[in-house]
Amino acid sequence: MSGEIVLKLKAVAYYHGPFGSKFGIPRQSGLSGVEGRIVFEKEFRSAEALKGIEGFDRLWLIWGFSANPEAVSWHPTVRPPRLGGNQSVGVWATRSPFRPNPLGLSCVEFAGLDGLDILVRGADLMDGTPVYDIKPYVVYADSFPDAARGFVDGAPAARLKVIFPEGFPEEYRAVLEEVLSMDPRPAYQDEPGRIYGFPFYGRDLRFRVVGDTLEVLQWDIKGCR
Amino acid sequence: MSGEIVLKLKAVAYYHGPFGSKFGIPRQSGLSGVEGRIVFEKEFRSAEALKGIEGFDRLWLIWGFSANPEAVSWHPTVRPPRLGGNQSVGVWATRSPFRPNPLGLSCVEFAGLDGLDILVRGADLMDGTPVYDIKPYVVYADSFPDAARGFVDGAPAARLKVIFPEGFPEEYRAVLEEVLSMDPRPAYQDEPGRIYGFPFYGRDLRFRVVGDTLEVLQWDIKGCR
Repeated sequence: MSGEIVLKLKAVAYYHGPFGSKFGIPRQSGLSGVEGRIVFEKEFRSAEALKGIEGFDRLWLIWGFSANPEAVSWHPTVRPPRLGGNQSVGVWATRSPFRPNPLGLSCVEFAGLDGLDILVRGADLMDGTPVYDIKPYVVYADSFPDAARGFVDGAPAARLKVIFPEGFPEEYRAVLEEVLSMDPRPAYQDEPGRIYGFPFYGRDLRFRVVGDTLEVLQWDIKGCR
Repeated sequence: MSGEIVLKLKAVAYYHGPFGSKFGIPRQSGLSGVEGRIVFEKEFRSAEALKGIEGFDRLWLIWGFSANPEAVSWHPTVRPPRLGGNQSVGVWATRSPFRPNPLGLSCVEFAGLDGLDILVRGADLMDGTPVYDIKPYVVYADSFPDAARGFVDGAPAARLKVIFPEGFPEEYRAVLEEVLSMDPRPAYQDEPGRIYGFPFYGRDLRFRVVGDTLEVLQWDIKGCR
């Protein structure tokens, strides 16, 4: 028993979804408008391994915070955005990505199979995120609706009115309205009028916030990665 | 993006509890009589890292199936004990320990701190299990009481009447009654009268099952590990 013992994980799959950076992703929000796809690596691509998965409404994904800069190591305390970024909490009391082992845990909706891909909704994962494990959600073992929740009072609430420029594609308005209304700006930043952006479906989405209104400025094909 | 990318995990802590082998542990049962302790490795032992954890009733543990024999690799299908061990289900539709990355996920009760150790209840982990991550249980992101549950109909039910030999220590009767009443025998074994055993608090516990009654035979200090 020593910290030197190391467990090596292989990515069994990669998640593909609309968010091209970790900025903009509403963490642990379960927005069901956000559709994604789990694509297995060749070695793990198997119809048999999926047998019976249709019986479950929800799945757990254990995944890697692959967007963490290599140089950032863990700190005993973090400043969760939910506390406005100015209060520190121990790393074991948060879902912060900056933790000794960079593992994420997310409960997603199972939305069906497409061939050997798993379709999901409500994942707070970046496009290209490695997935290390997929487990069925089992109510008696996983669901504790009355558990006290520390500093986390409830689901993040929609805060902003979202307006789109004329001609903005209809098909993306609903999901973006859901995502943007929750205010994707870092919690500790409040520079009115500053232009923010993140990659969404491979395109550069730009917006600004004035008062309670978020205005989408552009969404074009010039990548911002 | 290739399966060759490997994430290396260090054990941040080890779990210590009554079960000395994986046999006998009621999986994902959350038996709150089962008390355990999470002891951090030196590098991760920090009062600051625990700040705020008292606000949560429950924690997630991501841990390693360290009892898996090295030689056993994963199969696309497994035979869950809950189905009597004679029906096969895809590995992604089960919580089986035999999976491509041997990670376990368990929701446990937070029972307080003892110095820098975390006390927990209801963990289905073997004594000495490496813990890779600890996260707070967040109701809005984790609790979905109405999710469909595939082939898993509900919590495992107590099935057996448990009788103890005269003089059996009072203090261990309650937890053992909880554990043993759920029938720790492998689901696909039914050899009436056969003597089974597992290590419990470092001692060799022996029992047999006849009809609906489980009879504890002995619990002595001769180790069976």
